[in-house]
Amino acid sequence: MAGSSFGTLFQITTWGESHGAGIGVVVDGCPAGLALSPSDIQAFLNRRKPGQNAYSTMRKEADEVEILSGVFEGKTTGTPISLLVRNQDQRSHDYSQIKDCYRPGHADYTFDAKYGFRDYRGGGRSSGRETIGRVAAGAIASLLLKNLGIQVQAYTKAIGPYTIPADEYDFSVLKSSPLCMPHLGYSQKAEEYLRTCMENQDSAGGIIECQIAGLPAGIGEPVFDKLDALLAHAVLSIGAVKGFEIGDGFEAARSNGSTNNDAFCLKDGQITKKTNHSGGTLGGMSDGSTVIFRAAIKPTPSISSLQQTVNSSMEEVDISVKGRHDPIIVPRAVVVVESMAALTTVDLLLRNMSASMDHLLRIYR
Amino acid sequence: MAGSSFGTLFQITTWGESHGAGIGVVVDGCPAGLALSPSDIQAFLNRRKPGQNAYSTMRKEADEVEILSGVFEGKTTGTPISLLVRNQDQRSHDYSQIKDCYRPGHADYTFDAKYGFRDYRGGGRSSGRETIGRVAAGAIASLLLKNLGIQVQAYTKAIGPYTIPADEYDFSVLKSSPLCMPHLGYSQKAEEYLRTCMENQDSAGGIIECQIAGLPAGIGEPVFDKLDALLAHAVLSIGAVKGFEIGDGFEAARSNGSTNNDAFCLKDGQITKKTNHSGGTLGGMSDGSTVIFRAAIKPTPSISSLQQTVNSSMEEVDISVKGRHDPIIVPRAVVVVESMAALTTVDLLLRNMSASMDHLLRIYR
Amino acid sequence: MAGSSFGTLFQITTWGESHGAGIGVVVDGCPAGLALSPSDIQAFLNRRKPGQNAYSTMRKEADEVEILSGVFEGKTTGTPISLLVRNQDQRSHDYSQIKDCYRPGHADYTFDAKYGFRDYRGGGRSSGRETIGRVAAGAIASLLLKNLGIQVQAYTKAIGPYTIPADEYDFSVLKSSPLCMPHLGYSQKAEEYLRTCMENQDSAGGIIECQIAGLPAGIGEPVFDKLDALLAHAVLSIGAVKGFEIGDGFEAARSNGSTNNDAFCLKDGQITKKTNHSGGTLGGMSDGSTVIFRAAIKPTPSISSLQQTVNSSMEEVDISVKGRHDPIIVPRAVVVVESMAALTTVDLLLRNMSASMDHLLRIYR
Amino acid sequence: MAGSSFGTLFQITTWGESHGAGIGVVVDGCPAGLALSPSDIQAFLNRRKPGQNAYSTMRKEADEVEILSGVFEGKTTGTPISLLVRNQDQRSHDYSQIKDCYRPGHADYTFDAKYGFRDYRGGGRSSGRETIGRVAAGAIASLLLKNLGIQVQAYTKAIGPYTIPADEYDFSVLKSSPLCMPHLGYSQKAEEYLRTCMENQDSAGGIIECQIAGLPAGIGEPVFDKLDALLAHAVLSIGAVKGFEIGDGFEAARSNGSTNNDAFCLKDGQITKKTNHSGGTLGGMSDGSTVIFRAAIKPTPSISSLQQTVNSSMEEVDISVKGRHDPIIVPRAVVVVESMAALTTVDLLLRNMSASMDHLLRIYR
Repeated sequence: MAGSSFGTLFQITTWGESHGAGIGVVVDGCPAGLALSPSDIQAFLNRRKPGQNAYSTMRKEADEVEILSGVFEGKTTGTPISLLVRNQDQRSHDYSQIKDCYRPGHADYTFDAKYGFRDYRGGGRSSGRETIGRVAAGAIASLLLKNLGIQVQAYTKAIGPYTIPADEYDFSVLKSSPLCMPHLGYSQKAEEYLRTCMENQDSAGGIIECQIAGLPAGIGEPVFDKLDALLAHAVLSIGAVKGFEIGDGFEAARSNGSTNNDAFCLKDGQITKKTNHSGGTLGGMSDGSTVIFRAAIKPTPSISSLQQTVNSSMEEVDISVKGRHDPIIVPRAVVVVESMAALTTVDLLLRNMSASMDHLLRIYR
Repeated sequence: MAGSSFGTLFQITTWGESHGAGIGVVVDGCPAGLALSPSDIQAFLNRRKPGQNAYSTMRKEADEVEILSGVFEGKTTGTPISLLVRNQDQRSHDYSQIKDCYRPGHADYTFDAKYGFRDYRGGGRSSGRETIGRVAAGAIASLLLKNLGIQVQAYTKAIGPYTIPADEYDFSVLKSSPLCMPHLGYSQKAEEYLRTCMENQDSAGGIIECQIAGLPAGIGEPVFDKLDALLAHAVLSIGAVKGFEIGDGFEAARSNGSTNNDAFCLKDGQITKKTNHSGGTLGGMSDGSTVIFRAAIKPTPSISSLQQTVNSSMEEVDISVKGRHDPIIVPRAVVVVESMAALTTVDLLLRNMSASMDHLLRIYR
Repeated sequence: MAGSSFGTLFQITTWGESHGAGIGVVVDGCPAGLALSPSDIQAFLNRRKPGQNAYSTMRKEADEVEILSGVFEGKTTGTPISLLVRNQDQRSHDYSQIKDCYRPGHADYTFDAKYGFRDYRGGGRSSGRETIGRVAAGAIASLLLKNLGIQVQAYTKAIGPYTIPADEYDFSVLKSSPLCMPHLGYSQKAEEYLRTCMENQDSAGGIIECQIAGLPAGIGEPVFDKLDALLAHAVLSIGAVKGFEIGDGFEAARSNGSTNNDAFCLKDGQITKKTNHSGGTLGGMSDGSTVIFRAAIKPTPSISSLQQTVNSSMEEVDISVKGRHDPIIVPRAVVVVESMAALTTVDLLLRNMSASMDHLLRIYR
Repeated sequence: MAGSSFGTLFQITTWGESHGAGIGVVVDGCPAGLALSPSDIQAFLNRRKPGQNAYSTMRKEADEVEILSGVFEGKTTGTPISLLVRNQDQRSHDYSQIKDCYRPGHADYTFDAKYGFRDYRGGGRSSGRETIGRVAAGAIASLLLKNLGIQVQAYTKAIGPYTIPADEYDFSVLKSSPLCMPHLGYSQKAEEYLRTCMENQDSAGGIIECQIAGLPAGIGEPVFDKLDALLAHAVLSIGAVKGFEIGDGFEAARSNGSTNNDAFCLKDGQITKKTNHSGGTLGGMSDGSTVIFRAAIKPTPSISSLQQTVNSSMEEVDISVKGRHDPIIVPRAVVVVESMAALTTVDLLLRNMSASMDHLLRIYR
């Protein structure tokens, strides 16, 4: 309950700072008997690694994962899985600027306000590198879900003013887009837009959408731990996220009941819905349709153009955040959103196991 | 961790069904020595009571609260505060329709999917009456915050297509608007719109906004239990909420860093921000500005016009949800959102107490 | 996490003071579909009710339970079960003595030290009446276990100097002993001893033993939430308990490995143990043998003979605790220990459901 | 809640297996600003290191700790502290015996029963090496307590039949006794006893006692999270512990109220107690006296004399556990008990910070 853990039965605890010894995560509660290799995790980490295209920081990090515990002869043992990624880029930087000034849009000021001081090297604990632990754990959650026939997939829906309409998605091109967009035309326009931002020493934001397919109905806890409430918690816990919506989201607020309600019908003898305005949940539990939600990502706060701020001597000063920064974090954040969605889903699946005497009798008959 | 509790140090556990014996909440972890009377709680409950205007259900409920424990000689004792509201409207209804059919937009189907059966009387646990426990607890949280100089205030920002621009708010008229809108002109247009919805046997949604003023900087836990993440969790746990945004929210996704970053400056020797695009948080901790967030509320799913659905014999049927329903729940949900915000804020304030050795020494010197 | 909850998946939250409106408990996480009637709970409550024999306080309390939620048509619904027992004996007593003085052996002083003041009426929250909530919840846990073929049974092993040797237990006489002892001879000697204590205005303690039979192997979480660790937590959380031991307990500390190790063998093709020095756990998990543990109960601190203490004006004074008190609480505490054991066992059974992919596939295949 | 975490506000999560890559712990919730160096932690780890005397295994392990996060410029930052100890003794052993057979007194069988298989190398997760994480975290907790004037000290009270009476303790000799006994005469007799055990290919148990001095009154949560209940939980979570008692413990069960109650009195104007039968707690909260409790430790189950067991082919076989084993683990477990006591105490101190409005106003005035 100290803030660095997420989940109740499938519980992750992350640790590590941007320029400390490394970043890691302990995954506790992973069921025994899941086949797991380092490459399963590495594949996820590679999706968030810096330096993969023109719109990403040049920081050199291999981000290689080591499994320290919890896996034996290629299978999870039921005991905690400890994962470690060493930081390589630990060379002594010049931190005098960031040490003395509160960068606008960053957590420098709030860390000092809370704790009295902070590890100022590269953002310390508030650095985007913290998400390495989430992604490493998300890889395991995602793998577990695949074993149950559940697929989680996130992608970039919008960058700046360019939003792909839902009926134009083409997931076959997803890997061809350096921005993780399921539409090459929009992807190219967005790239152009980003180049302009970079020329202006400015940055951009965007929207990530995520779908969870194959989830059985009834997953989620009715009152406070609704599936959508936990997804919102999970997604807003990612540094740059400023909004969350499920299904029609804010559009639903402008709609009418007759339009927004999804009619139930039968398909192949199964109950299903004619539409999916709800985004796959009813009363906080999965309704058998695909769960679909969106996260609003703010523009990267690190920009090299001049900004006004205050320094630690309580003087008003100007700051230009030096170094090469991501003009946008959306593409690298896609796998982070996907990881948080997978972690939330696994946790609620495990919690649902004790929902009924019928379930108990299937295990303890 | 069984889903009916919220908060870690200021923890509430709610219970109760729409047509059971009553609804209640246990508040555990309320600090000792807070002056508290039943009328403090009743005032909050009255704000969500049905039957107060033309846009609210006519169900007759006094919703009178009884304090069963945790208060002695007018002050909280530090032990759990148990609050009880008896259901009065328990007369035998005809539930045959709702018993056999899955109402679109409701949790009937998902409850059955999870548990195998459900208490079908008036929605059972998924009824809006469940929020009585939240509001009763929220009254205590709100009172505690007032003692620390922190004010939480929610209101209706939009109903259907009518959205009040932020620069036109007039909070002096809030109590005059039956829809809890801080602008009489918009309120009247929204009332007109609702009357049309009712004539069409339809319902409407809207947006609730909430402000937390006076919160010191540094409240919130850096990684998973960020202030905004917990507010999102809290707000999405309310039945009809489909979206959450803080500060500029989804608008931030379309903005640029140079615009979206809030410059720091000095005011009366204190650090403050020139703008508040962030909505009062940085890195998941309060930044000293007013916290401001919005919740998207879907249209009431209970409508009397004909809808398609499936019954428990797996037949496709039409349903018209009988009875007099709220054409909109937004005005009554305002105090629910405010309550959840107050509960979240108190919990994080308590958690922040152990943030530093400096704090410890102030208590245990 | 605020101290009035126990359990993680089968979670109880108790509330109430000795002379407040009532005592209650919310049980959250009980699986849906368990047949449950008020009489199941009442039967447990009656076992701890005062005034049933010469060695128990004469306080008149019907201790009738009301189920306020979570049960529909005779079955648990999976939503929180709220149970309420109204206090009847609320007439105005003379509390001047207890209000001003710290009774030795009681929590008067520590409550004041923690919270600054206390509800002094009859011990307030620290009264033995608090256990009503535990026993009401324990009845449900015990019923659930019976459905899985698991039996929990507690009884009095010792009172003062009279300890029944394990090989002389006769459980057929348990209900005939007013002291819940499985041996009539010892029971009679213990009654005699208690009468002497009462004549001397003194009180006595004893030892409660509890057995859990039919528990499958592997229940308990390997490291911090071992079955025995949680049983110890559960049992020590009962007011008067000063010690806990499992299996041979403190005797094991004086033993040797060659004696204390239980040899494994086969019986009817099943793995079993030749002896049960371990008390049914190995590495914190059930080993398939009967779990057996003991709790040491201190003598009732309320005695009418003169004691030295300090009053709230910081003066040293003498006190004689007035009124008719239980000369021993052991017999009434038997069902409390049994309840805590049942609650712990159910919680760990539910937690064990997600131990392996094999279990997951049995539910979500 | 997945079993490898302990504590709520000062929360530790341990991981690692006996012959995996290493052992570690994440400490989340440590207040910022505590001066901490690796040597503070190493000093604690050295107290449990093997191979320090004739009564301890010869396994060669440096057990050197690396601080991976959460400390900056010599002070804790408030973010999670990750500690890593690499296993050195990972050379390929012959595990055929332990792989196929269930060692009596070990967790081999229960791990298989729970998870379907196990990491059989050296006991895997159930190895005593798991306590490295506890001790590393305990060092931090202990240091924090010292900053508040609270001292935790554990020592060996008994080995086999040799128990030091409380009035003969001589703590000045504690470091001279290889068995951590505060009495050289008893220590020498115990050493002789252990040599006989070793000659007989047998092992011994004992009792560890622990004192917490300087704790203010009121620490502990009144109902389920009593100070003594959490200490019992903490101590029983250590592998070999079979019993726990606080104050007079089981002796209290044979006592009378007039003897067992501790009279209150004044000393230097402060409330104190004339005796300490209670062991420093009343109603589950510290009473200002020294907290004193004991843990019963069973004999090491690994013995080289012949034992009966069952193998994985379900055959009855004899086993002699090979290798050099600790004939007693008590001396090395002393620092583990001390660590668990320190962790429990810190956690409850942090939880107590939000006990009253008075405390809140001291932080947020």
